[in-house]
Order: sequence, then structure tokens, then C-alpha cells
Amino acid sequence: MNSSVGIVKTEYAQFDVELQLESGRVLGPLTLAYETYGHLNSARSNAILVTHAWTGDAHAAGRHAESDRRPGWWDDMIGPGKVLDTNRYFVICSNVLGSCNGSTGPASINPRTGTPYNLSFPVLMVRDMVRAQALLIDQLGIDQLLTVIGGSMGAMQALEWGVHFPDRVRSIIPIAGCGRTSPMAIALNALARTAVYNDPLYKKGNYRPEHPPADGFALARAIGHISFLSDESMHMKFGRRFSARDGLFDFFGQFEVERYLEYNGRNFVDRFDTNSFLYLAKALDLYDVSWNFDSAEEALTHLNCPSLWFAFTSDWLYPPSQTEEVVDILRQLGKPVEYHLIDSAYGHDSFLVEPEKFTPKVSTFLDRLAS
Amino acid sequence: MNSSVGIVKTEYAQFDVELQLESGRVLGPLTLAYETYGHLNSARSNAILVTHAWTGDAHAAGRHAESDRRPGWWDDMIGPGKVLDTNRYFVICSNVLGSCNGSTGPASINPRTGTPYNLSFPVLMVRDMVRAQALLIDQLGIDQLLTVIGGSMGAMQALEWGVHFPDRVRSIIPIAGCGRTSPMAIALNALARTAVYNDPLYKKGNYRPEHPPADGFALARAIGHISFLSDESMHMKFGRRFSARDGLFDFFGQFEVERYLEYNGRNFVDRFDTNSFLYLAKALDLYDVSWNFDSAEEALTHLNCPSLWFAFTSDWLYPPSQTEEVVDILRQLGKPVEYHLIDSAYGHDSFLVEPEKFTPKVSTFLDRLAS
Repeated sequence: MNSSVGIVKTEYAQFDVELQLESGRVLGPLTLAYETYGHLNSARSNAILVTHAWTGDAHAAGRHAESDRRPGWWDDMIGPGKVLDTNRYFVICSNVLGSCNGSTGPASINPRTGTPYNLSFPVLMVRDMVRAQALLIDQLGIDQLLTVIGGSMGAMQALEWGVHFPDRVRSIIPIAGCGRTSPMAIALNALARTAVYNDPLYKKGNYRPEHPPADGFALARAIGHISFLSDESMHMKFGRRFSARDGLFDFFGQFEVERYLEYNGRNFVDRFDTNSFLYLAKALDLYDVSWNFDSAEEALTHLNCPSLWFAFTSDWLYPPSQTEEVVDILRQLGKPVEYHLIDSAYGHDSFLVEPEKFTPKVSTFLDRLAS
Repeated sequence: MNSSVGIVKTEYAQFDVELQLESGRVLGPLTLAYETYGHLNSARSNAILVTHAWTGDAHAAGRHAESDRRPGWWDDMIGPGKVLDTNRYFVICSNVLGSCNGSTGPASINPRTGTPYNLSFPVLMVRDMVRAQALLIDQLGIDQLLTVIGGSMGAMQALEWGVHFPDRVRSIIPIAGCGRTSPMAIALNALARTAVYNDPLYKKGNYRPEHPPADGFALARAIGHISFLSDESMHMKFGRRFSARDGLFDFFGQFEVERYLEYNGRNFVDRFDTNSFLYLAKALDLYDVSWNFDSAEEALTHLNCPSLWFAFTSDWLYPPSQTEEVVDILRQLGKPVEYHLIDSAYGHDSFLVEPEKFTPKVSTFLDRLAS
């Protein structure tokens, strides 16, 4: 059974605007990279926006070429007959503002100077990313999204859509999310920042793309990486195995888990821009649904659509208690809310690793909306 | 009520030995820094060994001078009328082998070369530290310790005492410990190592003491530091407060939690040797009570004395499940074992922050032994 969307292509939407940011600064013109799967129906009522996490991109499903080793990042979820069924739904995924995978970000050329923004790029909030996505949804001629679904930073975007564009979403599905990042999450990002700043090649953000601060950036990624895993998933994957090449009593000897973190960190350097990583980390840190409201309660009164929430038992980056904090407020406010705590050993990454544990509930939820 | 042990002095014991290490290498002559509080009774039966954590030292109680701002690291526990009552017990605390606070470690001068060992120092296991402590206990003329008590790496030492010197301990009290470090704990140490290795001043361990790899080492400490805290304790202490000096939308602006981590990391550089930190991290990583046995079960059959264990609900570095792994085996083996899960929000550091939550149980346990 081939349930792939097949060969897909990233599109680039241009917006000749000056987007007003939460910081008070403006940013424009803008480019947003995006992909779509399936077809918009004549009523324009079957569009689903998929929102990605920190280092994700617009390529959520299918392959760019037959030879691609791996499909898009949520290919398990999107395709004919899958939970986000492209025979029924028109699925859109766009790379967030501030990223480096085709959308305007710190590595983009500032048209006013002809040079990359680097650290002259404005600090963004998740709310700004969502405002930029709304421009894309406008351009695609869609008044109302059937749902916005995403994990981690994608969950934050889904919630912001619900709160700030209540007329434009029929539902939201935040997965492994929160109403505000915790001091622990901020602390982990702070360590990643310091790892980059410590690298002499960082040059206060003015490194050349071909000479990124690779040592510091790989370490920054590894710091993030452990927060996506869980003690249990590490036990399953590595245990206490020592790397065969190295002696147990060699000072520089490595356990398997540390070789893996190093390897992944190094790989990441080649596929992501350091400044983008830091700007998105900052957006995560600043994330608070109550920003510019008096309270989270006041913010959440604006969410009128049904919301479906998932949290994972082994997630220690955005632990279930943080999702429950939001869900509890929504219940107190009498909002239509459904919440499931999913038993999974894969930590924060569970939303990518074990989608089958929550997709049946997503299907039921979407069927009910569409009926 | 003055319940301090008062002014104390660190002593230095010299051992003209060649200690056979688990790695197969030998190390000697050795120096161990230690302090004692209270008096050894005529039966020599009231000695308690306090074992310290990763970056601890021999100075567990009292002050070195009236002007000292802070007393020893477990002053809440040790003194007249306290749980380790110096009117009743003779309390010994020694700096572990491999550390930099007076005991032989990588920063010590290798008598064969006249220069610091640096990375020619042998990789140690916790078992080696305990063998060195046994030399000190010999020298103090003590055949049998009433108990060995310590948290974190101190708990590992207590367990190793029980397993390898069953005739020399009447009990052990491991707090916030484990039978083997988890891949998560190893991964965190791996990040800390990389932070140091990335610093050009590290020079493969041959930095000059007056020019340590301060940036990398401060980050390494900060990585360790977050693992000692908990999400909840960070909420209580910092919340999401932004550092007043910095603007929220300043790229280099800091949350309180990150300023705290940076400040503490920087302070730490002045009081600890980088190589010692890494050697002790390695000893933590290698820690496994089953080392050189067929299994943890076989190792634990050697533990004959009563053991009293504490774990803390919010400890995610050595979570309760890891203590329970050992306790369960001991119960299956029919060993006299007492275990308490302590509800505390202070993470791994709870054993230092909230001793009052477990000290009553320690008192009862010691009274029963002494009676």
C-alpha cells in the first residue's frame, strides 16, 4: 500500500508588507516557504495547517525526489488514507518566520543593506510567526482553517492561532505544548546559547555561512537534543554501552550515548543556521500565551473553537503538567476541550516517534468537525 | 542555641602506598584531605564517615575561621545535638581521591616527573575512592564504621563501602543515589565535557592553573547545575522573570534563571580544577555496583549490614526509580533494608537543601544501631 503524497515541491510566497512585530519593530518584505498536499475543495473548508517545531521546515510529507532517503518530517501523519488524509484534506505546512529553510530569517539578505540581517534581525515571538502564516493563508484564499495541528513549538503556534484568529480556525490540536515555557526549558536554551557564544567563530553573529561556529553549535544542538529524549528512551537505545572503539579507562573514551549526541550535533551544523537556531530559541523562551493580556485566563477566553490536546508521560521538556495548566483553565472557562495523556517512553519527541498512539483520537476529532 | 562544631581545620594524611586501581594502573603516594568532628570513644565504635558529592570537599561542618561567611557543606547535619551528633559520634569527612581540595588528583604534582599529572592521571572509579578512604580509616585506628552516609556520589561511595568492606561497616545510608548511572546522567556529563574541550584554553588538559578554560568550564558547571535542580524549584526561585538590566526583545537579554546559571558557573571556575571536574564526571559515568561482578544481584549479596535509602520525588538526575532498582534487589535477597521516598521540590539537591525531611529517620536508624 503506497500512502505517500509522492513527489512534492517547496513553494515560496512573497509578501510585500511591513509586518508589525510584538517587539514594536517591523519586518518586511517577507518570504514564506511552504508545501501543500491534497486539494482545496470548492467550499474552501478542508484546509489544515500543520505547524512545525524549532528546527522543522515546510517539508512535512512526501519526497522532493525519488532518490530522497527520507520523506518529510511528519510523513507518518500526512497522505492518502493517513490521519491527515490528503484525499479529504488540503494540508499546508509553512516554514516559520525566523527559520532558515526558505522563510525570511536572520540569514536572509536585508533588502535595505544588501547584506544578511544576522543579529540586526528583530527578536520574534511565536505570535509573530502566526501573523506571517495568516498572510499565507490569505494568499491561498482560505478564510477558515479546519484545524491547526502541531507539536512542541507547533503546539504554541496552534494555540496562538486559536487565541488571536478565533474566526479563522474551526479547531486547534496542540501536541506536547504548553501555555508558557518553564524556567527549565529557558535554562536549557541558555546553555545552548552560551555554547555558541563561547565559540570564537561565532563572531557576535557575523560568522560567514561557510564558516559557522561548528563546535559550539553542535554542542548547542546536543543540549537541545537530550531534552527531546527521555531517560527511558536512552536506556532502550544506548543503555550504558561503551563505544567499542574506546577503552573504558581511556580519558577520552565515549559511551554510545555521547557518541550519538556528538554525531547528531555535527550533522545538524550542516543543515541549520546558527543565528536562526538562537532566534527560534529566544521565541520559545518568550512564549507565554498571556503576553499582552492580563492573565492566561484572559487570553484563553478568546479561544472559542474546540481544542484537542495531547501530552506525553515521559516528556520532561514540556511535561504534562504544563499542558494540564492550560487545559484546566479552558475547562474552568467552559470551553470545549479534549485532553489525552499518552503513555510513551520517547520523551518530548514522542509526537514524532509514536504518532500512532494519538492519531486515532485526531481522526475521531476531525470526523466530528467535518460532519 | 549554638550547635556548631565551631572552628575546624582540614588535616592531610599521607600514604606511602601504590594503590592498585580498577583500571589496572597504580597510584601513589597519596594524600587525603580530611576533617573530623567530635571524639572517637574508647571502644572506637562511634565513627561515622560522611562521603561527599562530585564537587564537595572535606569541609562538611563548622568554619575554618570566625570570619567565614558560610559553614561546611553539611553543617545542617553535623554538630552537637544535630542528626550526626558530635556529642555522640566521631564524624569523619575526607575529600575524595581525584578531587582538587587537598587530596591527590590530576592537579597534584606527579612525584616521578615533578609536574602536575593533568591527563596522565589515571581514570578512577568510585571503588578506588573508597579504597583510598579505607587507608585513612586504618590510619585513624578504626576497625569498623558505625555508618557511611552521603548523597549523590556520596551515596555511591556508601554502597561501595558496604559491598567491598562488609566487615568494616555496621550500616550504610545512601541518599539520592543509584546502583549505576543512567544514560541521561552520562549524556549530561558528555555535554559538560564537550563544553570544556571546545574551549581553546583547555589545551588537552595542559592549561596553566592561572589560565583555566574559564568559558567552557563555567558552561560545563552550568550544565551540571541544571541537573541538580528541578523544574519546580526553578519556578519557585526564578519563575519566568526577566533580568531587569536587559530588554525582553534584546537578543542578548537574559532571564533571571540564565543569569543565575552564568554567575554560578563563573564563580565555580575559581574554586575547582577543570581536570578534577572531568575525572570525577568520568568516575560518575563509570559507576556501576555490578562492575567486576556477574550482576548487580551478585554484587549486592556482599552487602550484609542494614542499609537506609532515601530518594527525592523531584530528582531527575538520579530518579527514585534508580534507587528503587537497588532496594528491590536487596529486598529480594532478604537483606535488612529501609527505603523512604521523600517529597521534595528541590531536585537532586534536596539532600543538601531539605535535610530536615529525612534526618528524623536517620536519627531513629542510628539510635537503633547504637542501642
